[in-house]
Amino acid sequence: MKIETKKAKFRQPLYLESGRIIEPWEIVYETYGELNEKKDNVILITHALSGSHHCAGKYSESDKKAGWWDDLIGDGKGVDTSKFFVISTNVIGSCFGSTSPLHPCSVGGTERYGLKFPVITIKDMIKAQKILLDSLGIHKLRAIIGGSMGGMQALRFAVEYPNFAEDIIPMATTWQTRPAVIAVNTIMKDAILADPNFKNGNYDPAEITKNGLRGLEIARKIGFLGYLSPKTFDKKFGREYLKTDGMFELFGRFQVESYLEYNGANFPKWFDPLSYIYILKAISLFDLSRGYLNLNDALSNVKDRLHLISFKGDMLFFPEEMKEIKREMDKLGKFCNYFEIDSDYGHDSFLVEVDKFENIVREILK
Amino acid sequence: MKIETKKAKFRQPLYLESGRIIEPWEIVYETYGELNEKKDNVILITHALSGSHHCAGKYSESDKKAGWWDDLIGDGKGVDTSKFFVISTNVIGSCFGSTSPLHPCSVGGTERYGLKFPVITIKDMIKAQKILLDSLGIHKLRAIIGGSMGGMQALRFAVEYPNFAEDIIPMATTWQTRPAVIAVNTIMKDAILADPNFKNGNYDPAEITKNGLRGLEIARKIGFLGYLSPKTFDKKFGREYLKTDGMFELFGRFQVESYLEYNGANFPKWFDPLSYIYILKAISLFDLSRGYLNLNDALSNVKDRLHLISFKGDMLFFPEEMKEIKREMDKLGKFCNYFEIDSDYGHDSFLVEVDKFENIVREILK
Repeated sequence: MKIETKKAKFRQPLYLESGRIIEPWEIVYETYGELNEKKDNVILITHALSGSHHCAGKYSESDKKAGWWDDLIGDGKGVDTSKFFVISTNVIGSCFGSTSPLHPCSVGGTERYGLKFPVITIKDMIKAQKILLDSLGIHKLRAIIGGSMGGMQALRFAVEYPNFAEDIIPMATTWQTRPAVIAVNTIMKDAILADPNFKNGNYDPAEITKNGLRGLEIARKIGFLGYLSPKTFDKKFGREYLKTDGMFELFGRFQVESYLEYNGANFPKWFDPLSYIYILKAISLFDLSRGYLNLNDALSNVKDRLHLISFKGDMLFFPEEMKEIKREMDKLGKFCNYFEIDSDYGHDSFLVEVDKFENIVREILK
Repeated sequence: MKIETKKAKFRQPLYLESGRIIEPWEIVYETYGELNEKKDNVILITHALSGSHHCAGKYSESDKKAGWWDDLIGDGKGVDTSKFFVISTNVIGSCFGSTSPLHPCSVGGTERYGLKFPVITIKDMIKAQKILLDSLGIHKLRAIIGGSMGGMQALRFAVEYPNFAEDIIPMATTWQTRPAVIAVNTIMKDAILADPNFKNGNYDPAEITKNGLRGLEIARKIGFLGYLSPKTFDKKFGREYLKTDGMFELFGRFQVESYLEYNGANFPKWFDPLSYIYILKAISLFDLSRGYLNLNDALSNVKDRLHLISFKGDMLFFPEEMKEIKREMDKLGKFCNYFEIDSDYGHDSFLVEVDKFENIVREILK
């Protein structure tokens, strides 16, 4: 599988949903496989909160980890890169190279945007991707596939750019972020803001990569609570206590605590706190019906085939929320498949239990 | 209803489950109604994480709020104070007057325990209550009733002091804290420890009451996520955005965010961060089977009638966990009722939806 990572730069302004403008701007993207002559074998993959453009393969043999959806994407896999040309971008606002709060706020300047960066929405993210695809001469997609925030992008594509893709496959997502999830998001933001080393956004990124940032560690741990179901916590950790720690030491640790510590401490090494805050805001603001009378009105735009995949044990975006889309699509007499995967793993099923839906994706892409 | 608040002081050592000792120690308690001559009309109420001994009534007409279970306890109510003598204590480790990390660590000294305070378990909490009741000449209870951590205490009483109460009514609780809840607890602790104003436990309590403590505010907000179900978040807050805030302002707030802010900011005014950390630890450590071969072995001690009340929408302590107790009690051929209240409110149902179980309690106490 051929992997290429590129950066596209645009001088024209990116007009945001907020009314604000980013210019110039850039977007990092990665491609897998070969674009055919007709340019009609393109699949767009959209990433979640902490994801990136690197969704499959390894850059070199020595890489410890492959891209985040490597189970699904590759030669002969559900998304077959020997047939399809797969593109994945890093969303605007994220910290893997696309324009973000870490970028200079003026051409040639050195001052970063920081907290002056404009609020980005899911609609803005897909607009930037659409402009990129246009610039590559790709005017029609075979499919758009994404989970969680990636699913929000896929749905937004279906509503805003009808007829742009043949198949839309959103997973483990919702059409409107519910207040319980907004609550989680805002507390994660609070944890970052409360850390004096965040310096109100004026931190030195290199320092955080090196020394960590407790506020961001805590945010990551809070997020984790929503990614796994209580049953998965049971299976993964049980009530094992670290053998090195005393049961009645105040800071003695259960295995789950030690795991969270390790995971949290690593996070600031590869993710940026400002980007985290901006992407959380985009997720909280997500409402497919914004700009329309209601969900039905928004979906009346859709011309692509919609294939919704939800997971029984997802306690962040409940299957019921995807079913609401299905119900409205049915009312409109539009093509919509709804799959509920039997799983008690939790929200992260779309990343971890690929074997449970790989064949569904393969069939859709046939 | 007659309310009396008292403090009992003990010179004899309190031997803790950890092997450590607290001496001297004191416990604050409150009583409602009148003790009859036979002293056989006593009901013990046990409180949850942020609760106190003040579970019913008002101290004066001008009090804004009544005790935390005032819907259930009072003259003519489910727990009828015109018939019963109700006692409620503040658990050891908590911050409403009983011995806690805020107390001096030596007689006549001024140095506080702080983080040197020993770890307290649910078993320690009930041991202290048992000693108090003994000192009052109360050697038999009509019933013990509590929700959440209060339910853990009720269960522990049933196992450790068989024949001490006639009826045990634990609600919205578990027999063993699951790793997903341990995870929530440890993140709350992390948030407090990360706050530089916590000063590793050496803060001035008056300063925190006055100026707040962001780490404790964040902890409170995290806790909140587990108290209400997503459906209750929907009903209570929806996706309303504050009219004063711009939709595309980074720190513009949904109503749920504003509520959390208000609630979080208030918490340090009435609850202490050290106590919070110690009580979280007690909850994480709770395992009714510790000290026994397994749950069945622990329950084989029980001689009181057990009435378990769980709530369908409780996503902190799932009904399934209470059912496990029921199953083991059935195997042992012991008296055990199991009630599952139809409710989608969430964990806080035991505080908020008293009307749904008041009659069950009334019947049990007949």
